[in-house]
Amino acid sequence: MIRITAKEAAEKLLKQDNIFVLMHRSPDGDTIGCGYALCMALQQIGKKARLLCADEIPQSYEYFTNGVEMQEFDAEYIVTVDVADRRLLGDLEMLYGDKVDLCIDHHGSNREFAEYGVIAADAPACAQIMPEVIEGMGAKITMQIADALFTGLTTDTGCFRYTGVTAQTHRTASYLIEKGARSGMINRLMFETKPKRQVMLEKLAMESLQYFCGEQVALICITTEMMQKSGALDHDAESIPSIPRQIEGVKVAVTVKQKADDYFRISLRTTDEIDASEICSALGGGGHRAAAGCSYHGTLKDAVDTIVRLSSEAVENAV
Amino acid sequence: MIRITAKEAAEKLLKQDNIFVLMHRSPDGDTIGCGYALCMALQQIGKKARLLCADEIPQSYEYFTNGVEMQEFDAEYIVTVDVADRRLLGDLEMLYGDKVDLCIDHHGSNREFAEYGVIAADAPACAQIMPEVIEGMGAKITMQIADALFTGLTTDTGCFRYTGVTAQTHRTASYLIEKGARSGMINRLMFETKPKRQVMLEKLAMESLQYFCGEQVALICITTEMMQKSGALDHDAESIPSIPRQIEGVKVAVTVKQKADDYFRISLRTTDEIDASEICSALGGGGHRAAAGCSYHGTLKDAVDTIVRLSSEAVENAV
Repeated sequence: MIRITAKEAAEKLLKQDNIFVLMHRSPDGDTIGCGYALCMALQQIGKKARLLCADEIPQSYEYFTNGVEMQEFDAEYIVTVDVADRRLLGDLEMLYGDKVDLCIDHHGSNREFAEYGVIAADAPACAQIMPEVIEGMGAKITMQIADALFTGLTTDTGCFRYTGVTAQTHRTASYLIEKGARSGMINRLMFETKPKRQVMLEKLAMESLQYFCGEQVALICITTEMMQKSGALDHDAESIPSIPRQIEGVKVAVTVKQKADDYFRISLRTTDEIDASEICSALGGGGHRAAAGCSYHGTLKDAVDTIVRLSSEAVENAV
Repeated sequence: MIRITAKEAAEKLLKQDNIFVLMHRSPDGDTIGCGYALCMALQQIGKKARLLCADEIPQSYEYFTNGVEMQEFDAEYIVTVDVADRRLLGDLEMLYGDKVDLCIDHHGSNREFAEYGVIAADAPACAQIMPEVIEGMGAKITMQIADALFTGLTTDTGCFRYTGVTAQTHRTASYLIEKGARSGMINRLMFETKPKRQVMLEKLAMESLQYFCGEQVALICITTEMMQKSGALDHDAESIPSIPRQIEGVKVAVTVKQKADDYFRISLRTTDEIDASEICSALGGGGHRAAAGCSYHGTLKDAVDTIVRLSSEAVENAV
């Protein structure tokens, strides 16, 4: 893959027409926001463009996806947004995986599957680099494009909370608000609205909260029974690991999620002094220093006993 | 009170010396951040300055309060930061309430108790206007001042989440990060760290969650028993009203907090179509359209029945 700048990507796009914009599977706010923004911008300057995603776009994004026309044509140029690996195209991989002309992404781990790539590894959201691409083509950031990109920016940074956020991230946010992004409405919709079933799951999960190792290890369980009782969907459980992680004094926050009778996914969040990936590697898993995961075959009790023992050892060794 | 600009305030401060900087009682991140930032800036340009607050400054702010010298001298000039009303000076009101020379604030409701005032009602945090005051005096925004002001900005906007956030808010955040504010660490400390007792209280409160009026009214109770059982302090309960408010489809979110055997504080959060202050006014309370409160003398059951009836009526009338 040949690395190019956002400006060079804009120049390439200007020379093309009949463009497919591909998002990653299980689409999130960043890939959807960047995809729709780019598609609208291309159509604005007279190109034919359409969006493709292996999975359905959630309705909650309709405030910027509504009214975007999906034109019919044969692809002449393929662009991906926020896609680090061709496998993340899901069912689209077989059709387009080896035909991607341009990859616009912000993952340092990008697998370089495209011919050309803009990889802004210092951007906490792909949306941070899109204004340069869009304006580089001579397109205007309309209010709808601003809403789309602000959504990408805020969702991928946990509303400007994560450590990857830089001065540039806030400058981009400021610029998009000036262009009409409805930041208050978007943040409320993305961060302050939970389905009743998710609140029910959080309640059940909190009842399972246990402390070990002098309250330095906190553990929460999500059983299939809790999932059924609450009616929660898989992605509703994504907010659970932050519950034990936020507790003052907790160094290892463990979430054990039952996937089958005798099969569990374990996720760990740790403070600076503890290496989560090292703990998980003992069970064949891995990840990053602050966040890692592994699987466990056996009973819930054994899963809990094992991960608590490994976590407590790590805490004691770190002292 | 004579209204002046931030630049004019800087010019006034330049002409003064022996300055007391007053914060409001029950100090929050914004008043503490602005107070410390101004005090450090004044000392930097050779003035004598010290901070005063009726209540203790919480230890959690020590990452920017540490090392700031409290000089001893008699006050010649009194400045307040983030203080909307002289009564909010608490125990300092009697001494200084009628002697405030300069009030730097961002509340549209400011009671104009000072001789001169910079009132930036369009700023969601007082910290947003401080860089202009500080740099207007010729002082530098050091890393420690940047940390202090970023803390004010992020805490008063719920980490850039609230609707009052503007393009300027993000521009100020960007500027403070460039000046060295440790935004990731600050956000983690301010928003992702809860004492164990608070998590325990949240768990107990969630168990009390009830729905009424076709799940459009959600109610949560905090009893003195829950407070005792969890060991929670009063301010630990501040996160509770956001639990019912975040539930999809809920139009009126009610939190009933027991203050004595037969005395309750009720707080309401409503969606756009319902006027919370109107509901609360029926019980002698008041507030804003989206957030209001009232008190209730009687049993818990009567408190709940009454506020649920009033809330349900409001929901039905709004349809």
